[in-house]
Amino acid sequence: MSEHAAPPEGADFGHDFARALDAADPLRPYRDWFVYADDTIYLDGNSLGRLPKGTPARLQEVVGDQWGRSLIRSWPRWTEFATAVGDRLGREVLGVDDGQVAISDSTTVNLYKLINAALDLRPDRRTILIEKDNFPTDLYVVQGIAQARGITCVYLDSDIDRGVDVSLVADALSDDVALVVLSHVAYRSGALADMVSITAAAHEAGALTLWDLCHSAGSVRIPLREATADFAVGCTYKYLNAGPGAPAYLYVRRDLQSQARQPIWGWFSQRDQFGMDQQYAAADGMARFLTGTPNMLGIASVDEGLNAIADAGIGQIQEGGRLLTGYAQLLADEWLRPLDFAVASPRQPSRRGAHLTLHHEQAWQVCQAMIARDVVPDFRTPDRLRLGFSPLTTSYDEVWRGLDQIRQIVQVGEHLAFPTERAAVT
Amino acid sequence: MSEHAAPPEGADFGHDFARALDAADPLRPYRDWFVYADDTIYLDGNSLGRLPKGTPARLQEVVGDQWGRSLIRSWPRWTEFATAVGDRLGREVLGVDDGQVAISDSTTVNLYKLINAALDLRPDRRTILIEKDNFPTDLYVVQGIAQARGITCVYLDSDIDRGVDVSLVADALSDDVALVVLSHVAYRSGALADMVSITAAAHEAGALTLWDLCHSAGSVRIPLREATADFAVGCTYKYLNAGPGAPAYLYVRRDLQSQARQPIWGWFSQRDQFGMDQQYAAADGMARFLTGTPNMLGIASVDEGLNAIADAGIGQIQEGGRLLTGYAQLLADEWLRPLDFAVASPRQPSRRGAHLTLHHEQAWQVCQAMIARDVVPDFRTPDRLRLGFSPLTTSYDEVWRGLDQIRQIVQVGEHLAFPTERAAVT
Repeated sequence: MSEHAAPPEGADFGHDFARALDAADPLRPYRDWFVYADDTIYLDGNSLGRLPKGTPARLQEVVGDQWGRSLIRSWPRWTEFATAVGDRLGREVLGVDDGQVAISDSTTVNLYKLINAALDLRPDRRTILIEKDNFPTDLYVVQGIAQARGITCVYLDSDIDRGVDVSLVADALSDDVALVVLSHVAYRSGALADMVSITAAAHEAGALTLWDLCHSAGSVRIPLREATADFAVGCTYKYLNAGPGAPAYLYVRRDLQSQARQPIWGWFSQRDQFGMDQQYAAADGMARFLTGTPNMLGIASVDEGLNAIADAGIGQIQEGGRLLTGYAQLLADEWLRPLDFAVASPRQPSRRGAHLTLHHEQAWQVCQAMIARDVVPDFRTPDRLRLGFSPLTTSYDEVWRGLDQIRQIVQVGEHLAFPTERAAVT
Repeated sequence: MSEHAAPPEGADFGHDFARALDAADPLRPYRDWFVYADDTIYLDGNSLGRLPKGTPARLQEVVGDQWGRSLIRSWPRWTEFATAVGDRLGREVLGVDDGQVAISDSTTVNLYKLINAALDLRPDRRTILIEKDNFPTDLYVVQGIAQARGITCVYLDSDIDRGVDVSLVADALSDDVALVVLSHVAYRSGALADMVSITAAAHEAGALTLWDLCHSAGSVRIPLREATADFAVGCTYKYLNAGPGAPAYLYVRRDLQSQARQPIWGWFSQRDQFGMDQQYAAADGMARFLTGTPNMLGIASVDEGLNAIADAGIGQIQEGGRLLTGYAQLLADEWLRPLDFAVASPRQPSRRGAHLTLHHEQAWQVCQAMIARDVVPDFRTPDRLRLGFSPLTTSYDEVWRGLDQIRQIVQVGEHLAFPTERAAVT
């Protein structure tokens, strides 16, 4: 599919064509690596990825053998588990050399640690730039730190559909900006930021960068190395398929590690941890960015989730995502545009991650009607239907059937029977 | 066993007596609730508790059904899971009313959040008191915060065997002390602090208290309510049997919650979380002290681990711990004192938690020799052998055989073949 894809000549919108695309899909064998418990059409692998078939047995090994049988004799394998699996995630997903990634805490806590570390590295600067439509937890962490440290928070006025571009960042940079906090793929629209150019602009102005990779890691190539990006964080339960609340990861470029101070000093970030010294001395390398005892079952899930990604390769996965979102866009243009839907994501596949967002004034009602038909999308405020395509687990058949269901629902007004207001807590 | 127990008249040190104690033990049925994979003598349940038999199936339910089958449709049950299980832990283990406990993050991260919250509640005070022999992660978190905020850290010069008493704390209190950070049960000696008196002394001086319950919760009654203690944290993988790296918990007394500011603002601490508002507004109640997405498998493990505790009741568990440590002390006095061991823990059962620490100059070598015989204790710097007795899972037979093994090892000098120096990283 070319960069500026118009519907190809003779595009075929029939179900057989979707099946033919599946038959030709080089990623098709990986669907056998995951659990499909029923006929649900799951267009939300970018919110919670599917369960890999190998994960239950792997967890049973950790629970039954390492915990149940070996008990504390498993400590030698646990003490370096967070950095060992971090290294693997770094190589297979983030494209960086060993010694720069660790599995730790949640994305929120990792943001907190690294934003503070970045501010300490630029003590004369008092401003953080952040996209106003960054994921809420990124905004909240920045707001809390800004309040506590008396830092100014400047919000980049990005378009919620097109995301952030280098000129918007460049215009806001100044010699007071310590740090730029951005998502690589926007959680709402799927817009893919130009990490290389934006990082270069930030560095030019003497600022550091922190990239949130939650919605990009495992779906597109991450140019951390090419960008010489400073810091990054991400979760593992979306395209990395590690399960609900599995631990997150953080990346710190090697040359920054020894200068960086992270604020939550715990026994896992201590040099000679089992020396039990009464005075803190920060460990070298990525261990410095750990805190308390890591979640061992969660790290095992992360490791297991990496198997399919490592086998397929991130290049092939990225290509699969572009084809899936491209195909969904064709169907949306053909079937849903007449029903008052519009593609809200950037239209060029190379300008987005692996999800496609549709605008519709009754998006919340449509979302509820879809779920009632066992088609699972995500609603995004204020009026967006977010369709996530996980290249390893979503088939063209699922895309066809999912969009066909939306068409059926809206054609007959089935969604109008559902509430227009979402409950305050869902 | 009375408070000031001397060896009873006609104390029987034979193996049959241990078996008779087991036969009469009201907690004996609970041993069937846990996995005993082999004949290991496990005297380290205070480091990592045993695997409950129900946990693998419970995890399979979360993994297979909630994740694998229901996927994001499980969110409604996950959003309040951290506070629901927190409430249960509060009732069954901590003896406090609902709405004051949540499962979240690690002990280290929870210490960080609550120490900062406490300092913000006492803005005119610039000193933290902490026992110099508190668990290292407590010391490190305090040191990091003290450095970042320009706070003075005063170390209580406690005796490492007797722990901290109220007069030591009272002497160090002043109108500059914002917070007192102590462990309820000392990780090294097992000494039990007088939470009620110490909290009263702190409050009298206008200071707040933060209790680390890692080594006490699940083994002794926790008088948080009686003490009107302010804050507490603890882990779940020791006497709560939730597995390696399972999430920790935090307690905030109800009347402090709305005034307290925790520093890590995340989407799980946001009011109307799924409103995705761009401006942070702290949730009410314990949700305010959450951060990012909680570890759902871990919370399920915590919930599962609570079953046996809830069934037995913490009063009966505390009594069981006193009897086990009392019995171990009798055997240590009789068998090991002649071999240059000394009981380092407080001698009165009511003055300690459920572990007993022995001093021996070659403790590290003895520890290694024990592990080689499948007897698992813990070594504690500089020369302590720590024997943990988990009332629900440790039998008198195990105590008898464990101490008998130590006797056999040291009588023939078997331990002298092991290294005298521990490796820098174990």
